[in-house]
Amino acid sequence: MTQVARLYNFPLSPFCRKVRLVLGEKRLQIEEVTVRYWEPSQEILMLNPSGKIPVLRMGKQVVAESTAICEYLDEVFPEPPLMPETPIARAEVRRLVGWFDDKFHSEVTVNLLGERLLKKITGRGAPDSRKVKLGWRNCRFHIDYMTAILDRRRWLAGDDMSLADVSAAAQLSCLDYVSDVDWNRSESLRIWYAKIKSRPSFRPILSDHLPRHPPAPHYADLDF
Amino acid sequence: MTQVARLYNFPLSPFCRKVRLVLGEKRLQIEEVTVRYWEPSQEILMLNPSGKIPVLRMGKQVVAESTAICEYLDEVFPEPPLMPETPIARAEVRRLVGWFDDKFHSEVTVNLLGERLLKKITGRGAPDSRKVKLGWRNCRFHIDYMTAILDRRRWLAGDDMSLADVSAAAQLSCLDYVSDVDWNRSESLRIWYAKIKSRPSFRPILSDHLPRHPPAPHYADLDF
Repeated sequence: MTQVARLYNFPLSPFCRKVRLVLGEKRLQIEEVTVRYWEPSQEILMLNPSGKIPVLRMGKQVVAESTAICEYLDEVFPEPPLMPETPIARAEVRRLVGWFDDKFHSEVTVNLLGERLLKKITGRGAPDSRKVKLGWRNCRFHIDYMTAILDRRRWLAGDDMSLADVSAAAQLSCLDYVSDVDWNRSESLRIWYAKIKSRPSFRPILSDHLPRHPPAPHYADLDF
Repeated sequence: MTQVARLYNFPLSPFCRKVRLVLGEKRLQIEEVTVRYWEPSQEILMLNPSGKIPVLRMGKQVVAESTAICEYLDEVFPEPPLMPETPIARAEVRRLVGWFDDKFHSEVTVNLLGERLLKKITGRGAPDSRKVKLGWRNCRFHIDYMTAILDRRRWLAGDDMSLADVSAAAQLSCLDYVSDVDWNRSESLRIWYAKIKSRPSFRPILSDHLPRHPPAPHYADLDF
């Protein structure tokens, strides 16, 4: 099923990437409208009073907050499913979505991508080297945690790809844009990322290119 | 249906309060184990590697992250429902849950309850008066936003009480413990809070009492 949708987007927002990956998995065509999220326009504030992106507009329906959007898309377009069937398995997916959206994002993404690139883009000054160092240290902890999971599961939440993988890949792909993931630290994680990176839903993300801030050379390589 | 559950809890955690309210609405008996969340024990880390509470143990099942727990409970114990029937209505509930858990919490609760009480309890020094002032200002914005919603809806997400109300009440009740909500600013908000406060599920929350940090005098009054 194909339906035109509009996503208010910023290419290096992991939360927008979650939604873009879900739209891709569901094979929904989207029109992406790039917004400067640090200067929310009146249009965005009308659609989402929090001023945050992503915001999805689909016909008359407007949905905001990445998790609300992803669950909505999975409910309305159930194929292929990105949530498992049992409540306890869904709880595990949602626990991990919370892990990546909240813990990983605040401990790693904000300290690395935020300090090293987004500050520059949004005119908030120079990176704080202590935060960058903390981000690196936290990133190692998170890689080890993901490795521990992936050593016993095919995908992060179980046998099938789910919103947990989407949330994790959204964060990691933003870090990978600026070459901030040490893929040598974990073969299991590298294999998992190669698997998700090669999916058709990932292509738009791999072709993201901010003019004055191009991606790391290996960013779009499926063999990295 | 009644089933014994154990909740790893801290009385003034809004995220634990979300879960306690849902357990109460579902009339599930819980054993609450109070934990010092700022010093996660080995037991907590075994149950939830993020070290965060709430964690719910129910028989053999362990669920972490408040939103994962609340959605799990609503799926397994559907009566009374705390999520509406249509995907778009559920998306609105989840948008608001994100609003209160993320935006309200970081803009208001952290700056008020966090600075004025939790810093003291967890031994992290004196309140930062600039943050407290910012918290007050942000709180007015949030009260006005909730008022705008409640002027056209019976409950925050629509005609029925939902997880959106639970998330909002969880944050506000923590602030009310230290008398940080200006109920005179909004009659609609006061009426909504009086309605939710008088529910049986709220009683355990109204009897919370930290020995050296007692609640504000009006905290448990249904007529405030």
